[in-house]
Amino acid sequence: MTNISNTKPIYVAAADIHEWARACAQSVGADAGVAQHIATYLLEGDLLGFRTHGLLRLRYNLECLRDGRSRASGEPLVLKDRKAVASWDAQLLPGLYVLPKAIDAACDKAKSCGTGTIVIRRAQHVASLAAYLSLATDRGFMISMFASTPGQRAVAPFGSKQAVFSPNPFAIGVPTQTQPILLDMSLSMTAAGKVRQAIAEERPLPFAGLITPGGEYTNDATTFLADPPSVLASLGGKDLGYKGSGLTLFSELWTMALSNYGRRQGSEDGDANTVWLQVLDPSAFGDQEEFLTESQAQLDAILAATPIDANQPVRVPGSNAIALKKQQLAEGVSYTPAVWRQLEKCAVMCGVDLPEVISKP
Amino acid sequence: MTNISNTKPIYVAAADIHEWARACAQSVGADAGVAQHIATYLLEGDLLGFRTHGLLRLRYNLECLRDGRSRASGEPLVLKDRKAVASWDAQLLPGLYVLPKAIDAACDKAKSCGTGTIVIRRAQHVASLAAYLSLATDRGFMISMFASTPGQRAVAPFGSKQAVFSPNPFAIGVPTQTQPILLDMSLSMTAAGKVRQAIAEERPLPFAGLITPGGEYTNDATTFLADPPSVLASLGGKDLGYKGSGLTLFSELWTMALSNYGRRQGSEDGDANTVWLQVLDPSAFGDQEEFLTESQAQLDAILAATPIDANQPVRVPGSNAIALKKQQLAEGVSYTPAVWRQLEKCAVMCGVDLPEVISKP
Repeated sequence: MTNISNTKPIYVAAADIHEWARACAQSVGADAGVAQHIATYLLEGDLLGFRTHGLLRLRYNLECLRDGRSRASGEPLVLKDRKAVASWDAQLLPGLYVLPKAIDAACDKAKSCGTGTIVIRRAQHVASLAAYLSLATDRGFMISMFASTPGQRAVAPFGSKQAVFSPNPFAIGVPTQTQPILLDMSLSMTAAGKVRQAIAEERPLPFAGLITPGGEYTNDATTFLADPPSVLASLGGKDLGYKGSGLTLFSELWTMALSNYGRRQGSEDGDANTVWLQVLDPSAFGDQEEFLTESQAQLDAILAATPIDANQPVRVPGSNAIALKKQQLAEGVSYTPAVWRQLEKCAVMCGVDLPEVISKP
Repeated sequence: MTNISNTKPIYVAAADIHEWARACAQSVGADAGVAQHIATYLLEGDLLGFRTHGLLRLRYNLECLRDGRSRASGEPLVLKDRKAVASWDAQLLPGLYVLPKAIDAACDKAKSCGTGTIVIRRAQHVASLAAYLSLATDRGFMISMFASTPGQRAVAPFGSKQAVFSPNPFAIGVPTQTQPILLDMSLSMTAAGKVRQAIAEERPLPFAGLITPGGEYTNDATTFLADPPSVLASLGGKDLGYKGSGLTLFSELWTMALSNYGRRQGSEDGDANTVWLQVLDPSAFGDQEEFLTESQAQLDAILAATPIDANQPVRVPGSNAIALKKQQLAEGVSYTPAVWRQLEKCAVMCGVDLPEVISKP
């Protein structure tokens, strides 16, 4: 155990923490490929700044592998395949293992058909969608992704105070002439993780993103743990929540209805996800260089827009994440003491010592 | 001219007003097919309750046909085609004529490949996306659509007070065991048409959906006509506008970047649209009956959710539109006196008398 401060971040070399996480996964039975993917795509979440879906989730993944909620080896089952699309059953293999494979398959289909679409049922928790986007953008392709959770109900449809939907992430990746555009967002006003974080920090949410059993929109995070609890509101809130509600319905239909695997089948599946992913080959629609010129023009137009606050330049989705990854690869990945304590628990569980802490240059 | 009240709605038989609109379009040079489509899909907007994109837009369409901004005959050009996708140049044919053809082509591709995707540049104004959705859902297919407008800048990216994006609609259609789910919404907080309506009615917007040149979020609709004007805010507003901004960017990239036809090429194209549409064949991913059971389960779950206001049952996207269409087909299509006056101008322009007004049963 490293002797660590209660407040200062801990830094560790990316390669070291990757190797450690891989060894942890292998120690609980994951085969080589599964262990490698778990380490790579959880770490990628940390590198890009999606801390709630980074190695903080290693412990959950290890527990699932140990107790059989995740399969430790094997391959997804192809349920159906037609030229440009396929439907897979991940059979509770880690989403971290299955999604990169699915993106690969979708890229191959996009090359021959223009688009490639894979829907996947029963992928054990997929963590952050952002972590996978560059698998497509690095090949010059566009990608869109949805994930839903048949075992969860947390988001109320507009006009209701009862949770029906899961809090579904949506992500896109688009190559440009410079850095890719990477967007990963939830379609609800906020996510359960952010509400729990507010509770832990004893502060209200910055906006009224919850609906109480009385039907009031509130920023009081503690209502989320009350009995009965509040539920997550759809993007758009009190005035325009029908838009966010419609978008969440979009994500539920494109995942659960299309895969024929929804709440009727998967209500006991815990955090397992149903996933939609689609890769597009821009050269099937036009000219690849022309496409990159257009996407770059979009990026440039956003960066050139007059900011509301002169000290806050307008940002392009993904730019902070990409800068943070570059910095952390060079200077070390940073963890809060709270997350580091979770990693220490994994180290004990697996009997694999955490790597050396480094000092920030 | 019918002698009409200044306040009471005017009712007219759907078949009569369709024939009238068709004859008007033909009188300004549209060939038979183009005229037929213009009448059908503008009227469909009225039937479904999308009044701002119904026959109110006939006059604009007629003017475009008369002065050559719209092509009155001919076919879209296929620029590129690969198994599951194609890119078309509508050559400024009316979107009302080209979109149904594109959906047909996408359905054929979906049948053989699982998905069919068409992007279209230079479609003259497409009116309401909702009007086209049933072309796919009636065949048991799912559809998603985006439209953008290279000649327009009206929506500010999050963090900015300068318009970069056009106010882009997004629509989906999904069959169920009963009525289809039909969603058609703008990805900005509000649309220019709604702001102009508020100005005409001398009332503020119901929420702060505009950003002033000073960078303030405001509900004051009149700022939209000031010099310099306010701009439309992204869905999510002051707190969560990065989500709506990301979604609008999604729609701009999937239309303009993919078609290689954005603001660099189309800034002088007026209201002409770039369109993305994708049809999915659920039977390529799983079982069609199972799919319909799932989409119906989604619909039922929403309808069963406890409403915030017991007098306002939770609604499913499209249910009001479908009910209104049924009612108007039975009882007559209703027009406000203001819209009727626009139709009277069309009647004069074309020398085609408006049909008999009917009294509501």
